[in-house]
Amino acid sequence: MELYGDERLDYLLAENMKIIQSPSVFNFSLDAVLLADFVWLPIQKGNILDLCTGNAVIPLLMSKRTKGKITGVEIQERIYNMGVRSVNYNHLENRIHLIHGDLKDMPKELGYHKYDVVTCNPPYFQTPKPSEQNLNEHLAIARHEILCTLEDVVRVSSQLVKQGGKVAFVHRPGRLLDIVTLMRQYKIEPKRIQFVYPKQGKEANTLLIEGIKDGSPDLKILPPLIVYQENDEYTKELHKILYGEE
Amino acid sequence: MELYGDERLDYLLAENMKIIQSPSVFNFSLDAVLLADFVWLPIQKGNILDLCTGNAVIPLLMSKRTKGKITGVEIQERIYNMGVRSVNYNHLENRIHLIHGDLKDMPKELGYHKYDVVTCNPPYFQTPKPSEQNLNEHLAIARHEILCTLEDVVRVSSQLVKQGGKVAFVHRPGRLLDIVTLMRQYKIEPKRIQFVYPKQGKEANTLLIEGIKDGSPDLKILPPLIVYQENDEYTKELHKILYGEE
Repeated sequence: MELYGDERLDYLLAENMKIIQSPSVFNFSLDAVLLADFVWLPIQKGNILDLCTGNAVIPLLMSKRTKGKITGVEIQERIYNMGVRSVNYNHLENRIHLIHGDLKDMPKELGYHKYDVVTCNPPYFQTPKPSEQNLNEHLAIARHEILCTLEDVVRVSSQLVKQGGKVAFVHRPGRLLDIVTLMRQYKIEPKRIQFVYPKQGKEANTLLIEGIKDGSPDLKILPPLIVYQENDEYTKELHKILYGEE
Repeated sequence: MELYGDERLDYLLAENMKIIQSPSVFNFSLDAVLLADFVWLPIQKGNILDLCTGNAVIPLLMSKRTKGKITGVEIQERIYNMGVRSVNYNHLENRIHLIHGDLKDMPKELGYHKYDVVTCNPPYFQTPKPSEQNLNEHLAIARHEILCTLEDVVRVSSQLVKQGGKVAFVHRPGRLLDIVTLMRQYKIEPKRIQFVYPKQGKEANTLLIEGIKDGSPDLKILPPLIVYQENDEYTKELHKILYGEE
């Protein structure tokens, strides 16, 4: 397998997998790992879709939790290509299928309401001024709402998921009200929220949320997830998510 | 001071105050104590209003944090009367004024947009069937949305608070989406949310939320508040809120 530019082949945590990353193109984040751990998944079979899949980190991690078929969609060809090579390297071609395309075209391409689970770690930042965007175009598209807005993500997820299926996102807590408003607008009823705090005593910096298409209202706030101990080491819980052991 | 029926004169936590309670009429809850601690208060002066004030536990506790004038509104005369006697017992007649009335009448009676802060620990439970309500009428009115709904509370709070003033509620996490939707509908922008968890590793059972009338969107999720340690003793943080010391 070839590596291009500043690409590296990194261990993907404790999963005995490797993944291609690149500081100048795309590195996966802790948030992606948390979403892959948070989302409900069918164990034996099912169709799972990950939007804004990047280098396929979420499909790769989810493949350890489900025997279902996983599809990932990435709009940036350069990053999509990193994902394809990582899937091949890990011999997961039969279980993970990556698509180079715009998520907004997916309901037409893939069909409406075919998926049991839809996940997305979308761009977090609204894009008021080009001057505030990342100058690196790859990173800017991954982080800013340039090619898709939060509303696009929620609307498309709602079009792709089956009735009764699950939709899970990771985002910043500051967008909580926007997310829950959009989810309800597009008939995905929020059911589970977990806030992630960098340390005990700090404000939350990450939000995990899962809803059910056409579900009934019954929201649970899961136990807080704290990332670091006082001594800056990972907490037991994070260690388990990251390395599969305590 | 006279006590009626099963009333007791209880210590109000570490505040060197006493408060009248009654198992058959009204006991204050931990949630009221948490709200009185959570809400932003002006230190030197200001007008503060507590709706659904019960036996005036929130005004009594807030009087230790602010020199402003505090008004409490309670619809049940029996409970209002407990509050009046508690305020008198603690010699706070000049700083806490209690009103026996329906919160829905307060904008007309007290004037629109006169308060710097409005607080409310409202009835938590929607009232689908009389059979599911508490048979004790006093407790039923305090706990169920019989005489006021959550929408009444939010609408009236918005009518009473000044532009730029604070509105703080305590409720169950399951109503988070209803509360934030109603707050935005009535132009109270949610700014601070804190979830209260009975123990590490458990789901949240209480929600504290504060918004600003006509504020701009900028929501923070405060650090999690855990009530009990593993050994069932209060955590340091709760001990400090309850007893003013660690």
